[in-house]
Amino acid sequence: MYTSLSPSLLNLYDASGSVVVIIDVLRATSTIATALYNGANAVIPVETVQQCIDMGKRVNAIIAGERDGKIAEGLQYGNSPFEYSKNFIHGKTLILTTTNGTRMLHMALQMGAKQIITGSFPNLSAVSDYLIAQNQPVILACSAWKNRVNLEDTLFAGAVIHKIKKYFTIHCDASNMAESLYLQAKKDVYMFMKKRNATHYHRLTSYGLQKDISYCLTPDIANVLPIYTGEKLTLM
Amino acid sequence: MYTSLSPSLLNLYDASGSVVVIIDVLRATSTIATALYNGANAVIPVETVQQCIDMGKRVNAIIAGERDGKIAEGLQYGNSPFEYSKNFIHGKTLILTTTNGTRMLHMALQMGAKQIITGSFPNLSAVSDYLIAQNQPVILACSAWKNRVNLEDTLFAGAVIHKIKKYFTIHCDASNMAESLYLQAKKDVYMFMKKRNATHYHRLTSYGLQKDISYCLTPDIANVLPIYTGEKLTLM
Repeated sequence: MYTSLSPSLLNLYDASGSVVVIIDVLRATSTIATALYNGANAVIPVETVQQCIDMGKRVNAIIAGERDGKIAEGLQYGNSPFEYSKNFIHGKTLILTTTNGTRMLHMALQMGAKQIITGSFPNLSAVSDYLIAQNQPVILACSAWKNRVNLEDTLFAGAVIHKIKKYFTIHCDASNMAESLYLQAKKDVYMFMKKRNATHYHRLTSYGLQKDISYCLTPDIANVLPIYTGEKLTLM
Repeated sequence: MYTSLSPSLLNLYDASGSVVVIIDVLRATSTIATALYNGANAVIPVETVQQCIDMGKRVNAIIAGERDGKIAEGLQYGNSPFEYSKNFIHGKTLILTTTNGTRMLHMALQMGAKQIITGSFPNLSAVSDYLIAQNQPVILACSAWKNRVNLEDTLFAGAVIHKIKKYFTIHCDASNMAESLYLQAKKDVYMFMKKRNATHYHRLTSYGLQKDISYCLTPDIANVLPIYTGEKLTLM
């Protein structure tokens, strides 16, 4: 089991034969889990706002995404999990543009990953149980922020490791570091983020999104398993 | 102040105008500090064994370096700080080939770093005091292991941050993570490395080098400040 703390480090690991878990806690993979948990048919991740708009014309779907904390021009909805309630998203397809998370899904695909799933605190147990059941090599792939290591993705990797490590061999300092940090944080991950002055905590708080942060750090609140087929994310 | 946990991440930070601290705790930067502390005139870091041999013919110097835990063929000495006692190294020049550490020195140079120094636990206070006195932006550059994040370099970065953070602004999760880990480890860094199953702890222990690990994790045991000029490392 390995942990890649940034997209810039992912190519150090052999994805072929591995289950790759894409992690973008604030907020892409938390929102993906939430939309699917609330009954979305599928989530289609795309990289650019224009791709999102273009695909929205072909597929009858919700087009969504943010840039710099605001709904991107030409799109209808944002990246917040609170926008994708059951009433709203059930039976619909969500086309979502995110920067870090989408890029990671495509990278894992190009690297020939055996399976690609998405993880975040809202689906912590679903991810952990699946990895144990699969019994394949695992790469926990943090999306980070413009390639810079971030605290929340690392903490989630640590949470998964803490749950599943007895079933796996770990020769990976990044994994051990992530688990150590999670053990420090787990009593109150939100407070740890705040106290440790996490950059993303500041960024989202400056947009008034404390509620999003709190939700995205809550374990098992949307406990489903999104699997990426290369085109879209759907439930197992 | 920023921390780069791997050479693959160093280019995310603006080195021009910064003091870059190259960190390769096990064992390059610990050995460099030790050789200079014990009176070496200079340490010349080179990347390959052949460069080491060639330069040794031109400069009357000790040529040293290891590959896979053994003195490399054609060289006289290894990477252990215990080889560079005062009796042996005083007044001499050491040409040292290391893989990760030397590469980092060259990278920092190419990135136009304002100043390049080397750090490790044996010269923790010298590095910290210097950074405070300089009052310039700082990049703590971990050498890692073949680009994979490692625990000991991260812990040293955390130790520096813990000593100097009140004098600097930190918007860097990697720095905050490093300090958190150091706070967990600082009571007994050696035991933390062992308990957390650090990859490099295992690698060196398998070569019988526990004594080296213990020395390289000891603060201020060779408390000098090596500065890299682009050609060699000398004391301030």
